[in-house]
Amino acid sequence: MKMNKVDLSFQSCKSTYEEADVVIFSVPMDATTSFRPGTRFAGNAIRVDSIGVEWYSPYRERDLNEFKTADVGDLDLPIGAVEDALEIVYNTTKTILKDNKVPMMVGGEHLVSYPVIKAVFESYPNLHIIHLDAHTDLRENFFGRELSHATFMRHVHKFVGDKKIFQFGIRSGEKPEFDWAKEESGHIFQRKFDFEGLDKVCEQLKDVPVYITIDLDVLDPSVFPGTGTPEPGGMQYKDLLWAFDQFEKLNNLVAADFVELSPMLDPSGASTAVAAKTLREMVLLLQKNLEKRK
Amino acid sequence: MKMNKVDLSFQSCKSTYEEADVVIFSVPMDATTSFRPGTRFAGNAIRVDSIGVEWYSPYRERDLNEFKTADVGDLDLPIGAVEDALEIVYNTTKTILKDNKVPMMVGGEHLVSYPVIKAVFESYPNLHIIHLDAHTDLRENFFGRELSHATFMRHVHKFVGDKKIFQFGIRSGEKPEFDWAKEESGHIFQRKFDFEGLDKVCEQLKDVPVYITIDLDVLDPSVFPGTGTPEPGGMQYKDLLWAFDQFEKLNNLVAADFVELSPMLDPSGASTAVAAKTLREMVLLLQKNLEKRK
Amino acid sequence: MKMNKVDLSFQSCKSTYEEADVVIFSVPMDATTSFRPGTRFAGNAIRVDSIGVEWYSPYRERDLNEFKTADVGDLDLPIGAVEDALEIVYNTTKTILKDNKVPMMVGGEHLVSYPVIKAVFESYPNLHIIHLDAHTDLRENFFGRELSHATFMRHVHKFVGDKKIFQFGIRSGEKPEFDWAKEESGHIFQRKFDFEGLDKVCEQLKDVPVYITIDLDVLDPSVFPGTGTPEPGGMQYKDLLWAFDQFEKLNNLVAADFVELSPMLDPSGASTAVAAKTLREMVLLLQKNLEKRK
Amino acid sequence: MKMNKVDLSFQSCKSTYEEADVVIFSVPMDATTSFRPGTRFAGNAIRVDSIGVEWYSPYRERDLNEFKTADVGDLDLPIGAVEDALEIVYNTTKTILKDNKVPMMVGGEHLVSYPVIKAVFESYPNLHIIHLDAHTDLRENFFGRELSHATFMRHVHKFVGDKKIFQFGIRSGEKPEFDWAKEESGHIFQRKFDFEGLDKVCEQLKDVPVYITIDLDVLDPSVFPGTGTPEPGGMQYKDLLWAFDQFEKLNNLVAADFVELSPMLDPSGASTAVAAKTLREMVLLLQKNLEKRK
Amino acid sequence: MKMNKVDLSFQSCKSTYEEADVVIFSVPMDATTSFRPGTRFAGNAIRVDSIGVEWYSPYRERDLNEFKTADVGDLDLPIGAVEDALEIVYNTTKTILKDNKVPMMVGGEHLVSYPVIKAVFESYPNLHIIHLDAHTDLRENFFGRELSHATFMRHVHKFVGDKKIFQFGIRSGEKPEFDWAKEESGHIFQRKFDFEGLDKVCEQLKDVPVYITIDLDVLDPSVFPGTGTPEPGGMQYKDLLWAFDQFEKLNNLVAADFVELSPMLDPSGASTAVAAKTLREMVLLLQKNLEKRK
Amino acid sequence: MKMNKVDLSFQSCKSTYEEADVVIFSVPMDATTSFRPGTRFAGNAIRVDSIGVEWYSPYRERDLNEFKTADVGDLDLPIGAVEDALEIVYNTTKTILKDNKVPMMVGGEHLVSYPVIKAVFESYPNLHIIHLDAHTDLRENFFGRELSHATFMRHVHKFVGDKKIFQFGIRSGEKPEFDWAKEESGHIFQRKFDFEGLDKVCEQLKDVPVYITIDLDVLDPSVFPGTGTPEPGGMQYKDLLWAFDQFEKLNNLVAADFVELSPMLDPSGASTAVAAKTLREMVLLLQKNLEKRK
Repeated sequence: MKMNKVDLSFQSCKSTYEEADVVIFSVPMDATTSFRPGTRFAGNAIRVDSIGVEWYSPYRERDLNEFKTADVGDLDLPIGAVEDALEIVYNTTKTILKDNKVPMMVGGEHLVSYPVIKAVFESYPNLHIIHLDAHTDLRENFFGRELSHATFMRHVHKFVGDKKIFQFGIRSGEKPEFDWAKEESGHIFQRKFDFEGLDKVCEQLKDVPVYITIDLDVLDPSVFPGTGTPEPGGMQYKDLLWAFDQFEKLNNLVAADFVELSPMLDPSGASTAVAAKTLREMVLLLQKNLEKRK
Repeated sequence: MKMNKVDLSFQSCKSTYEEADVVIFSVPMDATTSFRPGTRFAGNAIRVDSIGVEWYSPYRERDLNEFKTADVGDLDLPIGAVEDALEIVYNTTKTILKDNKVPMMVGGEHLVSYPVIKAVFESYPNLHIIHLDAHTDLRENFFGRELSHATFMRHVHKFVGDKKIFQFGIRSGEKPEFDWAKEESGHIFQRKFDFEGLDKVCEQLKDVPVYITIDLDVLDPSVFPGTGTPEPGGMQYKDLLWAFDQFEKLNNLVAADFVELSPMLDPSGASTAVAAKTLREMVLLLQKNLEKRK
Repeated sequence: MKMNKVDLSFQSCKSTYEEADVVIFSVPMDATTSFRPGTRFAGNAIRVDSIGVEWYSPYRERDLNEFKTADVGDLDLPIGAVEDALEIVYNTTKTILKDNKVPMMVGGEHLVSYPVIKAVFESYPNLHIIHLDAHTDLRENFFGRELSHATFMRHVHKFVGDKKIFQFGIRSGEKPEFDWAKEESGHIFQRKFDFEGLDKVCEQLKDVPVYITIDLDVLDPSVFPGTGTPEPGGMQYKDLLWAFDQFEKLNNLVAADFVELSPMLDPSGASTAVAAKTLREMVLLLQKNLEKRK
Repeated sequence: MKMNKVDLSFQSCKSTYEEADVVIFSVPMDATTSFRPGTRFAGNAIRVDSIGVEWYSPYRERDLNEFKTADVGDLDLPIGAVEDALEIVYNTTKTILKDNKVPMMVGGEHLVSYPVIKAVFESYPNLHIIHLDAHTDLRENFFGRELSHATFMRHVHKFVGDKKIFQFGIRSGEKPEFDWAKEESGHIFQRKFDFEGLDKVCEQLKDVPVYITIDLDVLDPSVFPGTGTPEPGGMQYKDLLWAFDQFEKLNNLVAADFVELSPMLDPSGASTAVAAKTLREMVLLLQKNLEKRK
Repeated sequence: MKMNKVDLSFQSCKSTYEEADVVIFSVPMDATTSFRPGTRFAGNAIRVDSIGVEWYSPYRERDLNEFKTADVGDLDLPIGAVEDALEIVYNTTKTILKDNKVPMMVGGEHLVSYPVIKAVFESYPNLHIIHLDAHTDLRENFFGRELSHATFMRHVHKFVGDKKIFQFGIRSGEKPEFDWAKEESGHIFQRKFDFEGLDKVCEQLKDVPVYITIDLDVLDPSVFPGTGTPEPGGMQYKDLLWAFDQFEKLNNLVAADFVELSPMLDPSGASTAVAAKTLREMVLLLQKNLEKRK
Repeated sequence: MKMNKVDLSFQSCKSTYEEADVVIFSVPMDATTSFRPGTRFAGNAIRVDSIGVEWYSPYRERDLNEFKTADVGDLDLPIGAVEDALEIVYNTTKTILKDNKVPMMVGGEHLVSYPVIKAVFESYPNLHIIHLDAHTDLRENFFGRELSHATFMRHVHKFVGDKKIFQFGIRSGEKPEFDWAKEESGHIFQRKFDFEGLDKVCEQLKDVPVYITIDLDVLDPSVFPGTGTPEPGGMQYKDLLWAFDQFEKLNNLVAADFVELSPMLDPSGASTAVAAKTLREMVLLLQKNLEKRK
């Protein structure tokens, strides 16, 4: 009888960091959340509940067991120190990329995507971003701060430049944000309310490096009540699965994340199940993409 | 540093009553509720949580800040005294109408729509009513009472007359109610299960005075679990947004309400978010309509 | 003033066993549940909350009051003794069939369908099974056990034989299960992800004896969060209502069940409302079918 | 195999009305509740959860099985019609007393004790009342109504007269209520904050007819969060058990009730467990008292 | 019929700032919370639920209506900017003191007491502090930050000096914190686990200026589950009421606060009721003290 | 930047099995639970939430960091196979004892204590057992089974013999159980309702090998609502801390467990906090005892 230490890695993602191709890490930060906080608990909630999720995906027709994925857990972050925390997220991503592995980040609030995208951009200067979200996240500043969950994509735009960001599902924001995002401005592509056109965008981005960031509140609150700022009128989970089918077309998916699960807000566990299944699908997308690229 | 009293008005609806065009009031009454009570808490729950909702609507493409809306809060009602409470609701509505303002009522159980519609009818004798609901609310009486949440629309019919009420989304009631509502009876228009035909009805009612009453349980319980009598098989929030698009066709929308949020029943806050967004959309509909009419 | 004992039968299903055509019984067992238990409480939760559900169905256009249905309550089962409990379920079903009544079983975990189907099969050797579920339930064994909620349909196949089982809505399982179920294997019919083709299958099975078993987790967790293993990407309640319309085509519907409500997991009561409405629809389907057969 | 109708009587209280000595009935009414409603669901919640409570009491050292107790369930009440509902409660109590049985009532809001006490008083004109509660319930009127949960004991005083009511545990009310209750007024005995003196009062009332009414919110909200108006600073459950020990001294306990469980407010089930255990203890008190009197 | 703006001031505390003696303000900040956040919602939750609390206190034997108290609501704070937020809290307190009013602050996390105490100290250089808490809050730094909820009292010590801080109820901390607090160190007075000695301390501090700060997690989690870091083994609410009786001895109570209600964590509302009653008692303490000083 | 696998060991108990003195393991089994299941989730819930608990105990005045404790996590158990699961628990305990380490087990339902005590007894034939519980657990059989959570201590008695078991806090059971436990029977020592006499028993058992098993439902449901069979009238957490002080007297504490946390039943997290603190105290008790014995 062998006695090992507790292992609560996500599902069967039990490779060591050294042997893994894809590396899951979670970021327990919700410091700039404006309404209900709690996304800091997402990573471990998903890990514990992943016992209820199959390793095989009938959508991707692959099994997590076929691949080498590591789960390095929650990053260790200073509390209440936004800049320091973002620095740690950035450094972690840099390390993973330097080691030739694919980062798969689990938030936390959406601001934590910023340092990940920044690090990935430094490796892939032609980076394109597919961004599924209920909210524009395009404010110039928010409650007097430049960097927050409500502004971060505007700041990503500052380094990736025009025509690199493709937003879908957006249904909440201030008027200036929507104006800035209009097609004639030439800054970004923005599809309001649904995923229409995502198939064509994936076709178009087939051969460029792509980062996918999903704020799970793009889903309708019925599907995903466990989030801080529920925004009715969102997507069904089947729509997200359709989006994942489109992502299969991409030949150069270099990293990904999803954010904004706040597990305390949905004690039924359904929202955590949504996140766990999303993580399975995204890891499989990244792994299959890697196969293609080898 | 100026010190003001607490102001928990809905979102940015901070005009005084005197300067406002549209007046929000809420009715904390659930006295005839037959299953789970709790709608009395709806108004203040929406107010407190409205901090999580944007003032700008990408659907209506307008911002609440552009308009003058007052929120006069919960009416002060006697507890357990149905008739007295309804009288107060009636008088409040009369006052608002007399002052040439548009009433926007937030329930409470659906019975509280009765005195509001009665008061509005007295100002607009040709009043037509669009009624979105899971339940017929057409019983002759209910547990021995003439006026209750389950009978009120039958009693509205008594004063507005035939062919003035248009129901959509109905999926629960007793057989005699459905029979009474059949087209051949000539009493009312009733569309079961969904909103099909609502676009044509809005076209048809374009120039007559219209009152909109929405029992939020017309939505599926997945979208809106925070209600006393959940009735599976309902509408998605996107369907309701489509209905609001149809309402933009109306040229004479004279008052409106929505009812039946019971916030305690959904501690995730998603149902309250549904109600808060609905209130934003309905205030904008009323305000845009008023602009048209000026 | 007559004083009777407490009667918490489902809705108006207050016939005695002797006078009834259809007999509701519930099975308070969740002993092999692998993730969140609690389905043992389903039967009584549905009974108590059925006060919130109308007796008339606008879908079936019939009223429960028109029929004679008995509700004999929760079976009395030994705790933690799987085989003994299944034996009791089996014997109960045999008795109901022997008395020329139609069994309507309410789970419990899905394993409890096994003895019911076995008993029904012994009366109807040409039995066909329509199975709505998120999960394949086709494992050879599960955690070392032959009979469990995750294996039971594979074991049903052992006695009903090839081409008798028709699965719809399946979206979770292990790869070998999906392989075993493939059309070319000739074992069963399996439709993944949705109900497409259910109308044709009902046409095809019009005149053979049919058993319907519904794992309510075939519904999306948004619609039905109160279940132990929520699997995102499921069906809407309107889809289930459409399925019930197809079931009206069957001329020989001999028994039915639904399973896997865990009421504690959804304190809003919405999941219990889904189950209560499903029970009303299924009793009406069985009763209308019986009328046809008389 | 015998098939009976569902029987969800409280624990083993399965006697028929005719054979019973003590009769449990519950009153699903919360119409005058001023804060959070929901006590209408208490009776059936206690019945369903009584499966988790032993029939034997190590405090009373007796077993419910030794006695003949009937449970006639929830009374059938009109909704929203306070006076009519109270009339039904009154008539039910009269019938039970006329049939020489002991009434054990389970609320509902505290107002429902009024008609029970009235009926019991008519049989026992020298009736004394022991009243455990957090709230005085001694207002002259409340929101314009004479009869409500906040006034009912003042109105009981009108017919029982001075020095018949003994309150314990009171910690909330308006100043005039406390003034009216002061010893020098000679109206009632009132012990604030705890049960001190209850032992002596029980000694003193040993041989007169006594009615016990317990508002379970006399318990601290930690012990009993499932109530509409939680009032911190209350009693522990052990204190209540001590009170029950004192009640054993009474030789003429003629009826009893407890009220104000709102089971929806405590989904953990702990508050319902408190109520179920209280019901067991009170039935045993009534039955043992009856033995003494025989 | 007069139409006013929504007024959700705490209970009857409806004086304007100008006319008030005591000023309630709440601080919606939980930025340095290390475990479960959510205290930002405390102020408005207390306001809305204060409808369920009487204005008269049988403990203080006074009524809130007898006094002039203003409630200026939640301060408007930048999100995620700890220093800026603390500055606003400090300035608010300074203004209230400058205007000769008594500040009554409602947190928020415990760190928000720091700027309030600092401002009060600047008016009363001989300030003594009575601190009820489960946690020492005496770390030198916490996750690399000097100012956090876990360090703030150590930093208060830096300006008030030795022998000015009196802690009670402490039952959690790191060893160095307990060592630093030992009597022989001469820094502060610390009573572990309970309130023993609080009566003597109040006697001793009778005539010096005193600030009371209460972390409500000093209460047992049974009494107060709605807090981010529940620490079993705490005080009953009756103990806190006893402490308030001791506080009546003070002749120079110059300001007060309580902190750490996280209302989302206790949907039963019991924790919010605890906080609302505490606020009533503390306002009455401050008002009665002011009477004494006039 | 070093990348490790997820480590969710309890608090700072991060030693390897090989280097550890005390070994924590958890048993995710609730198969014979008669009322509300869910204790299978206790172990990981405690691990994840232990981030909110200090490593230093001011009661034991020691820090977990001073000792070498391993946490080997949840045992891997077959579902629904009671005997097989108990065998695995037994073998695990045997292994730990054989390796000269002290077992600290976390349940699961109380039946899982049976194989642990059996294995410990085989190493210490003079084993005495201190058993804190609300329930006797002394039935001969339960629902037809010999081994269940309600019978297990009776079966422990069969091998440890008379006068070896010391029960405290018992307040629920059947009459025959209480009769069997009476002093004159000479089987066991049983203290009903509270911990009186525990200090003397600890004195008396000072030098014999002692096993402590704590069913956390010995605590009042107010303190610990997160358990399947809440039994009002229990102990405060301070009483349990006092019991731990008595346990310090023991010189030969050879193993321990606590059981019956069902974390889903208390989403506030307070019950999990109770369990986490209990685990900290019990590990420190075991470690300090080991120091004494070295």
